[in-house]
Amino acid sequence: MIRVLVWNEFKHEQESKKVASVYPNGIHSVIAEFLEKEKDIVVKTATLYDENCGITKELLDATDVLIWWGHAAHERVPDEVAKMVRDAVHEGMGMIFLHSAHHSKPFRLLMGTPCNLTWRESCDSEILWVIDPSHPITRGIDRYFKLDAEETYGEPFSVPNPDKVLLIGNYSGGEVFRSGLLYERGNGKIFYFQPGHETFPTFKIPAVQTIITNAVRFVAPSYRQVIPCPNVRKITDNMPYVI
Amino acid sequence: MIRVLVWNEFKHEQESKKVASVYPNGIHSVIAEFLEKEKDIVVKTATLYDENCGITKELLDATDVLIWWGHAAHERVPDEVAKMVRDAVHEGMGMIFLHSAHHSKPFRLLMGTPCNLTWRESCDSEILWVIDPSHPITRGIDRYFKLDAEETYGEPFSVPNPDKVLLIGNYSGGEVFRSGLLYERGNGKIFYFQPGHETFPTFKIPAVQTIITNAVRFVAPSYRQVIPCPNVRKITDNMPYVI
Amino acid sequence: MIRVLVWNEFKHEQESKKVASVYPNGIHSVIAEFLEKEKDIVVKTATLYDENCGITKELLDATDVLIWWGHAAHERVPDEVAKMVRDAVHEGMGMIFLHSAHHSKPFRLLMGTPCNLTWRESCDSEILWVIDPSHPITRGIDRYFKLDAEETYGEPFSVPNPDKVLLIGNYSGGEVFRSGLLYERGNGKIFYFQPGHETFPTFKIPAVQTIITNAVRFVAPSYRQVIPCPNVRKITDNMPYVI
Amino acid sequence: MIRVLVWNEFKHEQESKKVASVYPNGIHSVIAEFLEKEKDIVVKTATLYDENCGITKELLDATDVLIWWGHAAHERVPDEVAKMVRDAVHEGMGMIFLHSAHHSKPFRLLMGTPCNLTWRESCDSEILWVIDPSHPITRGIDRYFKLDAEETYGEPFSVPNPDKVLLIGNYSGGEVFRSGLLYERGNGKIFYFQPGHETFPTFKIPAVQTIITNAVRFVAPSYRQVIPCPNVRKITDNMPYVI
Repeated sequence: MIRVLVWNEFKHEQESKKVASVYPNGIHSVIAEFLEKEKDIVVKTATLYDENCGITKELLDATDVLIWWGHAAHERVPDEVAKMVRDAVHEGMGMIFLHSAHHSKPFRLLMGTPCNLTWRESCDSEILWVIDPSHPITRGIDRYFKLDAEETYGEPFSVPNPDKVLLIGNYSGGEVFRSGLLYERGNGKIFYFQPGHETFPTFKIPAVQTIITNAVRFVAPSYRQVIPCPNVRKITDNMPYVI
Repeated sequence: MIRVLVWNEFKHEQESKKVASVYPNGIHSVIAEFLEKEKDIVVKTATLYDENCGITKELLDATDVLIWWGHAAHERVPDEVAKMVRDAVHEGMGMIFLHSAHHSKPFRLLMGTPCNLTWRESCDSEILWVIDPSHPITRGIDRYFKLDAEETYGEPFSVPNPDKVLLIGNYSGGEVFRSGLLYERGNGKIFYFQPGHETFPTFKIPAVQTIITNAVRFVAPSYRQVIPCPNVRKITDNMPYVI
Repeated sequence: MIRVLVWNEFKHEQESKKVASVYPNGIHSVIAEFLEKEKDIVVKTATLYDENCGITKELLDATDVLIWWGHAAHERVPDEVAKMVRDAVHEGMGMIFLHSAHHSKPFRLLMGTPCNLTWRESCDSEILWVIDPSHPITRGIDRYFKLDAEETYGEPFSVPNPDKVLLIGNYSGGEVFRSGLLYERGNGKIFYFQPGHETFPTFKIPAVQTIITNAVRFVAPSYRQVIPCPNVRKITDNMPYVI
Repeated sequence: MIRVLVWNEFKHEQESKKVASVYPNGIHSVIAEFLEKEKDIVVKTATLYDENCGITKELLDATDVLIWWGHAAHERVPDEVAKMVRDAVHEGMGMIFLHSAHHSKPFRLLMGTPCNLTWRESCDSEILWVIDPSHPITRGIDRYFKLDAEETYGEPFSVPNPDKVLLIGNYSGGEVFRSGLLYERGNGKIFYFQPGHETFPTFKIPAVQTIITNAVRFVAPSYRQVIPCPNVRKITDNMPYVI
């Protein structure tokens, strides 16, 4: 079983009627709902409004994949929580950052760059093209899929050169954006996925759900531990890696 | 001085009135013309209609950067010429492949993949976005530039994962394409650049000329030689790399 | 079930008493033997001495992972066979190149570079260090493993910059070598693994067997097909990727 | 002129007689001395013992390349200084991290990983092999160079997969280490170079000086600015990149 934790800022849904009308129980609930239909996945959720953001070391130790959505309150996540998340990724926890989580503390800590991008609140439609059709994350997706409305993100996206670009978005307003990016940091796999503005029902769209579900399975670790880097007297003083 | 050789298939210009009206003296002449304005660049041209395609070992030895445009007659370039070009890149010769040269023999030999892509002859306009604004090849280009008409190329583009994606194109018809890609093979640098359909005056557009000129300087080798891989009896039997 | 085809040149074993004493039934037999112990793997073998090198389109279509060992008779593999292997990799067939197969025709076709390296026939011992302990291919391997005798390979190894370096070898004579390299070409995954000189019983060593077995599972495709790149009139004329 | 700032912790030289005997005026003085011989380079130095570590925003704004050596007092560099250095790299400042600076705050901030490695204080000798002989940083270096004594660093080195591995070290005790690594973060280029333990006269060795001098020229920015990521109403509301 893959143990998923869906973390959501959950601010817009409580403060904006428009957003509440799309996600009355929060974005996290919609994501949890479609993931829970999978036989190999179990889901927990946490939000900014839980104690300590709902994140503890014990919970992260029992999490295989953490999904993160945040936007307007990145700074309210304590530095210690962000570092705890980063360290769990180093150990092997898989991580999926959604949409505006590009500016979240854990993402910026893991990337080492500003993670800025150009944006427009718009009524653009977006066509997301599959760049790597043989990758497990794009399985089940045709050559492309379309979102009738999505916030426009534009390049440059100041992240390190990704290991792979899986998807590129074409916005009707003229922009492009690298919409699906893979990284590894320590033992952990990271997937950044651009769609998911709070005012649109993006997470209810089957292609989006397919990609997130595929990504959960792809970034889930086969095992997890801190990479040991011992101070050794000679090379035969070695410590085994594998538990 | 950077010694550039512009190679052009030169078939469409001689067989199509439409193309001849855009490039009466051939695509190679237009490219040579704007490059020759640069004080650090000298240019020669060659076409499919020259003896042995205009390519000899001696000429390649005296070429720092080879620019290649081909489309309808890739197979008329002899395998021996394609291998000679490949080997010159391995030694350090820089190479720029333009537009439909994605299917040229030298490009496919260097990539090791089919280099297929999806395409449409269209009247799409294209906006090319700068992904890496700090790269020497995109210097002098704003956030993007626009081509009023260009043949539509689409993903997937079956090339190896590039070292860098410098540009991504957004077509008005909805496609995206990784329009500026960097590779290294042996000692040689390779730049693939998507614009340049023969029926449009793409190579007369300043932004396109800027990028090709920048690319010439970027892929030009600082030195050139075959990498020696000696059979040695012990490591002190070494051969020096540097001439 | 993962369908593995082990291809071996099988020349040294028949011509050299020394090699025959180590691999009396050929290197392919030893590799087949340890792979056949795995419940999820079925194995066939082929050699240069079979008709058409033992390679047919039908056989490749029914092969998930092709393992290749060659050394002294690379040129006797017909170009058509080498291209057939390359094309199968593009479709998704996984491929493992062992030791001197760095100079085999299929490897050079897939890499697009000379694939030269420095070498010494020696009695060096080699320590192979795990660079990426979280990768599935290095699972079950400690921080390093040691080979009492192996032919010395040295850098530079003129291959494209690999997607990942999984192992680096330290030779007692002083050289280093990137001993485990990952690539993708088209839909296919490729693993190059340096150990395996014909005069040493390298393929009988448990750590070597573990890595090859892990690699079989890693490069095996989840599905297989040619990537379609249709000529479309408009983007809705799309063809589905997924069968 | 390339404006270099050499930052040195300068603790060992003042506290250890052994180190002081090798670097009586500090490691920074030796590095500054050989760089100042170059006609295109001007050098300043700073140490932990200067006010605010000798680092100000104004100084970084006037620095093209920052070289960093630190070991025993990484934590005494204030977080604000480390972030200031990181941000200058994002803008385009080049950066060279030497030896134990792998654990410095700016390096860890830029990498996003623990940057741990295995190590032994030893009397190992080290042979550093050139992996990429065509790269500007390895120009003037033969196939390898040897250090009679150097602290042993071992893999795994928990850094992100580098853009390029330029050098790999072979230690007489049996380890290997990726000794020359290239990264980009934002507009800035980063070179990590492993040699330089404080008890050995490593920085007085010509090959080491050649590599550091080459690296200064390679990581120096052609221009420098924050990448603008504007919030635009439509794409024509663009801001120019190039000053």
